[in-house]
Amino acid sequence: MIKVGIIGVNGYGGGELLRLLAAHPEAEVTVVASRSQAGRTIAQVFPSFRGTRWGHLVVSDQSSPEFDECDLVFLALPHGVSAACAPTFLAKGIKVIDLGADFRLKEAAVYAEWYNQQHPHPELLQEAVYGLPELNREEIKKARLIGNPGCYPTSILLALAPLLPTDLRADGVIIVDSKSGISGAGRTTKDELHFPEADQDFRAYGLVKHRHLPEIEQEASKLAGKEVLVSFTPHLIPVSRGIFSTLNLAAGRATSTQELTELYQAFYKKEPFVTVLTGNDLPQTKAVLYTNRVQLAVRYDSRTNRIIILSVLDNLVKGAAGQAIQNMNLLFGLKETTGLDAPGLWP
Amino acid sequence: MIKVGIIGVNGYGGGELLRLLAAHPEAEVTVVASRSQAGRTIAQVFPSFRGTRWGHLVVSDQSSPEFDECDLVFLALPHGVSAACAPTFLAKGIKVIDLGADFRLKEAAVYAEWYNQQHPHPELLQEAVYGLPELNREEIKKARLIGNPGCYPTSILLALAPLLPTDLRADGVIIVDSKSGISGAGRTTKDELHFPEADQDFRAYGLVKHRHLPEIEQEASKLAGKEVLVSFTPHLIPVSRGIFSTLNLAAGRATSTQELTELYQAFYKKEPFVTVLTGNDLPQTKAVLYTNRVQLAVRYDSRTNRIIILSVLDNLVKGAAGQAIQNMNLLFGLKETTGLDAPGLWP
Amino acid sequence: MIKVGIIGVNGYGGGELLRLLAAHPEAEVTVVASRSQAGRTIAQVFPSFRGTRWGHLVVSDQSSPEFDECDLVFLALPHGVSAACAPTFLAKGIKVIDLGADFRLKEAAVYAEWYNQQHPHPELLQEAVYGLPELNREEIKKARLIGNPGCYPTSILLALAPLLPTDLRADGVIIVDSKSGISGAGRTTKDELHFPEADQDFRAYGLVKHRHLPEIEQEASKLAGKEVLVSFTPHLIPVSRGIFSTLNLAAGRATSTQELTELYQAFYKKEPFVTVLTGNDLPQTKAVLYTNRVQLAVRYDSRTNRIIILSVLDNLVKGAAGQAIQNMNLLFGLKETTGLDAPGLWP
Amino acid sequence: MIKVGIIGVNGYGGGELLRLLAAHPEAEVTVVASRSQAGRTIAQVFPSFRGTRWGHLVVSDQSSPEFDECDLVFLALPHGVSAACAPTFLAKGIKVIDLGADFRLKEAAVYAEWYNQQHPHPELLQEAVYGLPELNREEIKKARLIGNPGCYPTSILLALAPLLPTDLRADGVIIVDSKSGISGAGRTTKDELHFPEADQDFRAYGLVKHRHLPEIEQEASKLAGKEVLVSFTPHLIPVSRGIFSTLNLAAGRATSTQELTELYQAFYKKEPFVTVLTGNDLPQTKAVLYTNRVQLAVRYDSRTNRIIILSVLDNLVKGAAGQAIQNMNLLFGLKETTGLDAPGLWP
Repeated sequence: MIKVGIIGVNGYGGGELLRLLAAHPEAEVTVVASRSQAGRTIAQVFPSFRGTRWGHLVVSDQSSPEFDECDLVFLALPHGVSAACAPTFLAKGIKVIDLGADFRLKEAAVYAEWYNQQHPHPELLQEAVYGLPELNREEIKKARLIGNPGCYPTSILLALAPLLPTDLRADGVIIVDSKSGISGAGRTTKDELHFPEADQDFRAYGLVKHRHLPEIEQEASKLAGKEVLVSFTPHLIPVSRGIFSTLNLAAGRATSTQELTELYQAFYKKEPFVTVLTGNDLPQTKAVLYTNRVQLAVRYDSRTNRIIILSVLDNLVKGAAGQAIQNMNLLFGLKETTGLDAPGLWP
Repeated sequence: MIKVGIIGVNGYGGGELLRLLAAHPEAEVTVVASRSQAGRTIAQVFPSFRGTRWGHLVVSDQSSPEFDECDLVFLALPHGVSAACAPTFLAKGIKVIDLGADFRLKEAAVYAEWYNQQHPHPELLQEAVYGLPELNREEIKKARLIGNPGCYPTSILLALAPLLPTDLRADGVIIVDSKSGISGAGRTTKDELHFPEADQDFRAYGLVKHRHLPEIEQEASKLAGKEVLVSFTPHLIPVSRGIFSTLNLAAGRATSTQELTELYQAFYKKEPFVTVLTGNDLPQTKAVLYTNRVQLAVRYDSRTNRIIILSVLDNLVKGAAGQAIQNMNLLFGLKETTGLDAPGLWP
Repeated sequence: MIKVGIIGVNGYGGGELLRLLAAHPEAEVTVVASRSQAGRTIAQVFPSFRGTRWGHLVVSDQSSPEFDECDLVFLALPHGVSAACAPTFLAKGIKVIDLGADFRLKEAAVYAEWYNQQHPHPELLQEAVYGLPELNREEIKKARLIGNPGCYPTSILLALAPLLPTDLRADGVIIVDSKSGISGAGRTTKDELHFPEADQDFRAYGLVKHRHLPEIEQEASKLAGKEVLVSFTPHLIPVSRGIFSTLNLAAGRATSTQELTELYQAFYKKEPFVTVLTGNDLPQTKAVLYTNRVQLAVRYDSRTNRIIILSVLDNLVKGAAGQAIQNMNLLFGLKETTGLDAPGLWP
Repeated sequence: MIKVGIIGVNGYGGGELLRLLAAHPEAEVTVVASRSQAGRTIAQVFPSFRGTRWGHLVVSDQSSPEFDECDLVFLALPHGVSAACAPTFLAKGIKVIDLGADFRLKEAAVYAEWYNQQHPHPELLQEAVYGLPELNREEIKKARLIGNPGCYPTSILLALAPLLPTDLRADGVIIVDSKSGISGAGRTTKDELHFPEADQDFRAYGLVKHRHLPEIEQEASKLAGKEVLVSFTPHLIPVSRGIFSTLNLAAGRATSTQELTELYQAFYKKEPFVTVLTGNDLPQTKAVLYTNRVQLAVRYDSRTNRIIILSVLDNLVKGAAGQAIQNMNLLFGLKETTGLDAPGLWP
């Protein structure tokens, strides 16, 4: 059994780690921490754990000595805070998966520009591995520090990966229109996310410099072998969960929906969590909620010579905690789908 | 491995059986049937199964010979239809759990009155066991035919059970106000359940003779040892899932919230799926969605000498498919929580 | 034109007053105040006023001299605060309609018990008129200070009024199960009303001593001519608006749905805002959202000899701002429906 | 008083016409028709009209002689059906506003290609006026037949209009990502729009040849003075109403958010229904629901040299019935905002 600790268990990412690890046969959560909730039980922090055996788990502070016994610590903390506490665990030989933004970017200068603060430990940026298993599996297996990708970047990079190295894509800005459930904004109350304010509303936010952009462009450029520019507009759907990304880009040559679909199918043939839809099927968020799965569909619009890619995932699972566990499985030599193979929910 | 067949897999109850059995370590779904969906794959019937190994399962017709190899068949069919096909399986030594209404009532005359048709096999009514494990565990273990309780009756009977045999309850009609998510109305489209018609709406329906009433009164009377009358008003919440039942009844003598809570805690002390809330905690549907759990709270209102009991469950899990699997576990000598112990979802 | 001021314009009740008064041909909002929003425009406080002529209105402080020019001031303030500022306006000959709880109860001792504070101006309690026009029209016309009823009490009292003075009701506790949209909890953020926490959830709250109880019992007792006891359980529906109240009470003698319906129809025959449904029609919140209308249906359950009454309204209109304007119309000799006769919205 | 008839009153567009005309001081609905609902009252067709004076209106058949007395007939019918019945009214000197798609396109061949049928009256296409008042006001005033724009085209064309004739836009495909509430799909039940199927789901549909495309390109090309190509992806938001369009296009030269915003403000300075947001404000559907208003915001992304325009409206008001009434006001020489100036709803 892998002994696992979670820091920042009170947020939605932390809670989702706990939920998914409860179903994991090879990992055991031995300690959880949260500054604000220390001393309370998990059942008090998450009503969905009432009556379960994990409900009795008491939230510690992150200085708890129990963390020293862990094989792995998940950090579900605000940016800046993760980076500050990761080295302590690494120094003790404990592996670290950061669900936050601190170990995704390779350049300290880029981090400083987009997060408005100096990175506390820039010396770790090159070592940290970007934890997107479908694109980076072998590096992840050997890592001790993983920067778990952002939810939007995961939905976008998996949608782009098959296309970027090919001549099917022309140069030019890639247009990405993403829509997220409101849990993506975190658990802290905000005036505009008070239920009656957000209910029945659809809105955009974060234009035109959302913090996920440098991460998207860094990884997309690596895949393309040249600089990729993305124009990214995120929106909020009045639901708790789910991300839908719609990508639109210039085709490099005339192609067809069938050729594109076959390219995507071939690319993801062996991937357990990525489904390329065929025929008239189109992705819908409901089909992947609470799972680690991604659904993709590709279309060629011959009228405009553009390619449209649709991508859905659950922002808290494949976009956060599920992907983190997928990374854990790789880190510890387990089958990649361990604890993550449940079907979705309907309705 | 228990070999399991499902008839009526296309509805919400059938799909939920499939989802829960996918996570069950001791049971295997070997055949699924649906008249309307025969020949399609499960991934076509439920988009949430796309990309999973169960997605490739092809829906059969219920006459498929594969059913003969089953140890157990779940029937998720309209009333009348279940009863007509159950004897065939029983005759072959296959156990049957009916998620519909055909084997819940003990009296053929009562069935005829409330369902407006003669029962096709009244001779089975006495043998069939009412499958509410918390109240009927020993009988269930020995059964070959189980009438799985209705969703409302489960929420109401578990709320009443500790109180009915005591002097804390006075005689008199028990007032039950229940609210259900819309999946309780089934998967067939209806004008008034078209999304824009039902969205943002809260309404009552089925007054004053909802078909779950005779089932509630039959079992409540058995528990009380005397006739119990219930006034039952069901409502629809504009969400997919969840039942919230609010019960209001006259106290037999002055009591207190604490005395009542202790009674409920003692009664359900060993029950893995029933949580009695204490202190200021109150049930909320979100805390039990997609789980087999029930949350209860009791209050004494000294001003009116009334007792109020609040009860929540997921209508498709503890109210249908989850409870059916709990019954299966008992039928086959497994630990009762097998495959059913996942925590809930948040948010 | 009646010159109107609103204090507490920033909350949902205040905003709804503004919206409804914008459509009122005989009243003009000349000044609005809010401590927290002073200096901002209405378009900044409510995005729904962007681009309208009211959007430019600047929020004042309540000490603004412009209030002295008003014929009427609406108070949409927390309890205790309303009562403290009402006498100033009354002293200047300005009429006051308080949307809060400070002038609904007749007894200072009852107020102190339920609101945990002494009433700042108990000498006004007897003079203040309970502003439920359907039951109290003549008194309202002559008032200078009106306590606008609570949202739940309005839905419940209108449901009870035809029955209370008759022999159709037996003595005994009246059971009321109410469900409200979340705007009823106000505009201030709360952890449990953060969108992802409240979305898809149905829950109870405020047991067993909700503050609307004394108001309900005071007025119901007056109507019945004897003490009436109510057991009241409020719940939250995951929508912005709407109240659904389900009342259940013992019949005084055998009756029928038809007799009851005729009683209700006769009682409300001349009421422009109350519709008694007939046949199989049942109330639904969506049918009255954003209107000042109430829909009622009555059923007799002969099995249990109980009467069930269903009542719907919009908590911010007939349950607050709309009723306040209905009271204003009466106070100033206008046709009662002025500014309030728009049909509802669908879908 | 303008005498108005509505054909196809049973759908969402028809109902919204009725709701808005109920508040119109210069128009009177004298006859409404629907094949499927003939003989029923409006209160039976729309529960939101129960208890109102329009509720008693009886639905006729479209052959009713009362239509001959009308000054104007609104057609809210499926494409093909509108075109077939328009000439009869025109021949009688009755003006016609078609809310459907039959009189929006100028070329019969384009209609045939996108709607898979021959146009029944191609001779009317050149005469018919495209009823987008902000762009086409003078022609509308003189028309006798108006093709009321589609909901998506309205949101997109108003977002593009200020930019198209300028050098701020570079040539190249305009990328449009639109999201609509589900009422846009009409009132007829569909399996995938059954409440539990659509609830909590976000999905795309209609790729890559949605029928609103030729209408968008026809009008955009006219505004640009050259051919405009649009890549359009529509999606469904799990709410009843609202459209959010996000447009992304290449800038013709370096510009700024401020320059763009000023361009838009100048362009729409005198428009009563179009609000250009400034500062950090962004459009949100909730701000315009149930109103005839459009909110726009523009952003320049200097990193990618792209312009992003955000546009919101209510699909049934400015996207259908409200715009039709705005056209009626112009046709009959009324002030354009008559009956359409109510503020929005909050929350």
